[in-house]
Amino acid sequence: MSEYRGYNGDSLKFLKVNQITVGDSVKILSDITYSGIIMPRYEHSDDKHIVLKLKSGYNIGLEIEKIEKVEKTEGLQKIIEKDEKVEKTEGLQKILLLSTGGTIASKIDYRTGAVTPVLTAEELNSSVPELAKIANIDAEVLFSEYSENIMPEHWLKIAEKINEYSKSDYSGIIIAHGTDTMHYTSSFLSFALAGFPIPIVLVGSQRSSDRASSDAALNLIGATKFIIENNTKGVYIVMHQDENDDTIACHLGTRVRKNHTSKRGAFQTIGDNPAFIITENQIQKNISKDFFQVNEFNPKINLDTKVALIKYHPGYDPKLLNQIIDNGYRGIIFEGTGLGHIGKIMYESVKKANEKGIFLGMTSQCIDGRIGMTVYESGRDLLDLGIIPLENMIPEVALVKAMWAIGNSQNTEEVKKIMLQNIASELTN
Amino acid sequence: MSEYRGYNGDSLKFLKVNQITVGDSVKILSDITYSGIIMPRYEHSDDKHIVLKLKSGYNIGLEIEKIEKVEKTEGLQKIIEKDEKVEKTEGLQKILLLSTGGTIASKIDYRTGAVTPVLTAEELNSSVPELAKIANIDAEVLFSEYSENIMPEHWLKIAEKINEYSKSDYSGIIIAHGTDTMHYTSSFLSFALAGFPIPIVLVGSQRSSDRASSDAALNLIGATKFIIENNTKGVYIVMHQDENDDTIACHLGTRVRKNHTSKRGAFQTIGDNPAFIITENQIQKNISKDFFQVNEFNPKINLDTKVALIKYHPGYDPKLLNQIIDNGYRGIIFEGTGLGHIGKIMYESVKKANEKGIFLGMTSQCIDGRIGMTVYESGRDLLDLGIIPLENMIPEVALVKAMWAIGNSQNTEEVKKIMLQNIASELTN
Repeated sequence: MSEYRGYNGDSLKFLKVNQITVGDSVKILSDITYSGIIMPRYEHSDDKHIVLKLKSGYNIGLEIEKIEKVEKTEGLQKIIEKDEKVEKTEGLQKILLLSTGGTIASKIDYRTGAVTPVLTAEELNSSVPELAKIANIDAEVLFSEYSENIMPEHWLKIAEKINEYSKSDYSGIIIAHGTDTMHYTSSFLSFALAGFPIPIVLVGSQRSSDRASSDAALNLIGATKFIIENNTKGVYIVMHQDENDDTIACHLGTRVRKNHTSKRGAFQTIGDNPAFIITENQIQKNISKDFFQVNEFNPKINLDTKVALIKYHPGYDPKLLNQIIDNGYRGIIFEGTGLGHIGKIMYESVKKANEKGIFLGMTSQCIDGRIGMTVYESGRDLLDLGIIPLENMIPEVALVKAMWAIGNSQNTEEVKKIMLQNIASELTN
Repeated sequence: MSEYRGYNGDSLKFLKVNQITVGDSVKILSDITYSGIIMPRYEHSDDKHIVLKLKSGYNIGLEIEKIEKVEKTEGLQKIIEKDEKVEKTEGLQKILLLSTGGTIASKIDYRTGAVTPVLTAEELNSSVPELAKIANIDAEVLFSEYSENIMPEHWLKIAEKINEYSKSDYSGIIIAHGTDTMHYTSSFLSFALAGFPIPIVLVGSQRSSDRASSDAALNLIGATKFIIENNTKGVYIVMHQDENDDTIACHLGTRVRKNHTSKRGAFQTIGDNPAFIITENQIQKNISKDFFQVNEFNPKINLDTKVALIKYHPGYDPKLLNQIIDNGYRGIIFEGTGLGHIGKIMYESVKKANEKGIFLGMTSQCIDGRIGMTVYESGRDLLDLGIIPLENMIPEVALVKAMWAIGNSQNTEEVKKIMLQNIASELTN
């Protein structure tokens, strides 16, 4: 980390003149006297302020023009960063931790609260010392991307890496992943690695780690406990259940969505309770069926991104659908209204898409509930036009499944069959 | 209604030969003896069965080949359909009921349970006799569309019709509307008629009326009570709070979403309790602020549909965004991931859109929570590219608001200002 991270122009000059750097403990005389630690700033910050973390934990911006005096104090010593290998304990189960990036894999400087984007899996492991007491964790970095930059190519790489360990002595695999698109990744792994012999658990954190309340450590501990104490296959997302630190939720990787931008309990199982609830003393199981509905492990690590997601709304111009057809797309997932409807204005374009052999699947923008296309005239018309009602599949999951199904088959009829086959609990009662 | 509605081929022949029609009470000998009423069928039904509504209320399909004997019984008399003008009571407040179609305006034959799609507003009124005791209701049909076929042109017509009554002696206006896109319509009315002097209440029903549990009547009564007993301006959606018939929820028309495909309590206020809860004896108010954040009524009944909604996902091809730009769109609402992110792969196209003066707004596919584009690098990059973070505006509302703002201004800077101005409680704390 740069000693002056985020500072520029006047504020950078101010720090240099006063011989202080990020992380120093200082006492500053302005309108009143402040004591605290110099914090790093974001790259787009102005150059008129410095930021101080007060002992209360709050950050405060101080206008440099108004500062009369600044002096270094004997505060905490600067933390020297070092890579530490975690000791292994004989007899504990083995877990593989793969990191892909995201807030959970951000480097935490507990003293300054600075977040830097790359933390090796090994560092992530050593930053949560509790882990070494419950499992022997091998750690490996796959890449370092915030999850809005995770692309289908990354899904393939993650799946291929996991597939190397289908016959390993690991009890399970944890993937540290950004939360934004975590449920898209979990869906792809659920289909591509259907039947995988050991659990695959994605884990992230919602709070950037400059807050005392970061959820990273507890989610990681929850994921580890889940693997150690449960003998179950499947792909799961493990995150805080709510704002409370006592309960960690374990969601089916094909029935979960990020439903809040910032809350720690942002992930929710759609239409049901989380599959497992992990507390300090027990793991409560809420599901009766196996995650995988296929018996054999037969990896199919392929996909085709020529699948579009169309959220229908009043004013949607079917010309946009026509362009998607002309672009050579092979699948379209509609986020229809209500039970699975789109306006009559769309029918001609839908007919054209069907005639071209494009797979057409219907989900609902309501997100919760089941598609029901025989209730109203519109639904029945759409069935006649070749649209396949995808039961209660979540739109994002349907999109990923269609990419995967089309990547594994050239035949539209076969794709239709795959889309309606319950492979990884993507369809529930 | 046709006497043989939905019957064809063999089943139609069977009815004719036995001289029975839909709505007749019959006794049928098959494996056992059934008593009930002949029900209409859906148009795509097979011709091997007839459907009987048993006294228990359940419908049963009987295979005609297995029927040994059928005879008409002296059941309830066929209900003769007639238009009945509801008597007015002096001293009661006046309400205008406009019908636009949807399940709520479907014709209910309580005896056969058949649903036909057109019910005049007057019939809707007379079908719920309780209404006449609490208000004098004038009824008018605007059109008869299921709401997936309600287009922005319909929004304009509804707004223009309502605008005619800005100086009337009505206490409020109720709009019977299909539920699928009801929240899009309520959003448009909230902006186009901001400051409207009397409440505008949209009401629908989730259950097709062939079930005893239809919510149409209770929602309509709830809407009427709300108008009569509350002296408040605004645009609201009034629907069942949950599966329970005792509580009706009244949602702010810009903070609500259909979140379940079929439940009666499908509509939910995002991130908060409903604005009002209506029970038999009281109306509980959960909001402290006025719905409209503007003081004057100054209708602006315009829109431009050249606004696209882009739900970003891994694998989204920026070529689709380029085509939208080339199509001459004037606004784009992103449903980004998490706090308001889209992948780096989109940046070049976003830059191009911004240079063309297209309004670019960011919302989140999480639906709940606030956009926060200064937390992570991606967000800050997108701010630099000209994307406007739309706070906690719901994506569908942001889309409608952008159509309206762009329909009222040629100037992108002005559109940006309008989009961030809290007009009708679309932004909340």
